[in-house]
Amino acid sequence: MRLRNKPWAQEYIQAHPEVVIANPEARKGKWHEEFGNSNPVHVEVGTGKGQFVIGMAQQNPHINYIGIELYDSVIVVALEKVLEQEALPNLRLLNVNGKDLTEYFEKGDIHQVYLNFSDPWPKTRHAKRRLTHANFLTLYRDLMPEGGEVHFKTDNRGLFEYSLISTTDFGMQLKLVSLDLHAEEPEENVRTEYEEKFAAKGQPIYRLEAKFK
Amino acid sequence: MRLRNKPWAQEYIQAHPEVVIANPEARKGKWHEEFGNSNPVHVEVGTGKGQFVIGMAQQNPHINYIGIELYDSVIVVALEKVLEQEALPNLRLLNVNGKDLTEYFEKGDIHQVYLNFSDPWPKTRHAKRRLTHANFLTLYRDLMPEGGEVHFKTDNRGLFEYSLISTTDFGMQLKLVSLDLHAEEPEENVRTEYEEKFAAKGQPIYRLEAKFK
Repeated sequence: MRLRNKPWAQEYIQAHPEVVIANPEARKGKWHEEFGNSNPVHVEVGTGKGQFVIGMAQQNPHINYIGIELYDSVIVVALEKVLEQEALPNLRLLNVNGKDLTEYFEKGDIHQVYLNFSDPWPKTRHAKRRLTHANFLTLYRDLMPEGGEVHFKTDNRGLFEYSLISTTDFGMQLKLVSLDLHAEEPEENVRTEYEEKFAAKGQPIYRLEAKFK
Repeated sequence: MRLRNKPWAQEYIQAHPEVVIANPEARKGKWHEEFGNSNPVHVEVGTGKGQFVIGMAQQNPHINYIGIELYDSVIVVALEKVLEQEALPNLRLLNVNGKDLTEYFEKGDIHQVYLNFSDPWPKTRHAKRRLTHANFLTLYRDLMPEGGEVHFKTDNRGLFEYSLISTTDFGMQLKLVSLDLHAEEPEENVRTEYEEKFAAKGQPIYRLEAKFK
């Protein structure tokens, strides 16, 4: 993603702690207090400009969503979108690094992880940075109850091939594989900003759902 | 595959028992005698008109190949191709049904199975007929030494999605997944007749290698 420097971003983010949680370490193990209910929590790692997580929160009011995004110049766009909507009591954003999840969540805090159009890191020496690398799968598993799921979509063929092998080598069960999501697009599919661009070019979108055993 | 009735096929096949084995039941457990060596045996189930298995036999003289094809009007085309080549001592054809493999092979007789552009049987009620169904995987596994592999390619998206789930649910390890084989076609790839047609249309060819654990 092209990043523009937005000096006003941090200030704007800090002015809206009701959406972008200011002190997420303090919520560890207590996310039900933050949301005021005990509904399951689904986390999108790399939430970008927020279209997916906002759409999901609107579609599924009985699930709590947390969108995690490292770059403040990007998450600020998601924040603007949230503020344009009707209030979404089941959505929060975190301006943190996905690899530090254990600082903000403990075992059982997360019920499902979404990864959408993650950075492919195509060079073999960068494989550990891919969000479907075994190290990341370990991280997600250790924060979920048994049977937690990872739902992943991408237009990147190499990353998808890698992820099929990586998730199954990890012992996860493939519940669903789609090699052309838009050929028979499920009604409940929420498109990301990227997804709409790629779909318009006629490139296939790949999707999988994998479950920890 | 469109089948034309060829009344002369059976006669022609029976005239060439050096290629299309006449009494394969008798070879069970003794394929090394048939080939005159103890090289590994790779079997293509559904060998069609034979281009793949002939190409593989030419490319890999130290591997024995057996192409299995049910329809005599189809295998006869493969037979004609074999007879047009230089002698291929490492290739045989069997005019039998793949689901009856245990009549012709016993544990350890087969080292690798190839499935190429198998019938997709798209209806759920026909899933058991797909050559990557658990029942067929059980059949292959029970004829192989430990660590045997299934190599599969197809242009059929639904069948490939199914096969990724079926092989991994069976506990097989995905060694390789390609979602567009011809995008970076390996030098050693031998194309089937179908594969050439589909490739010309620009449709992706999917491929996987899965290993029994």
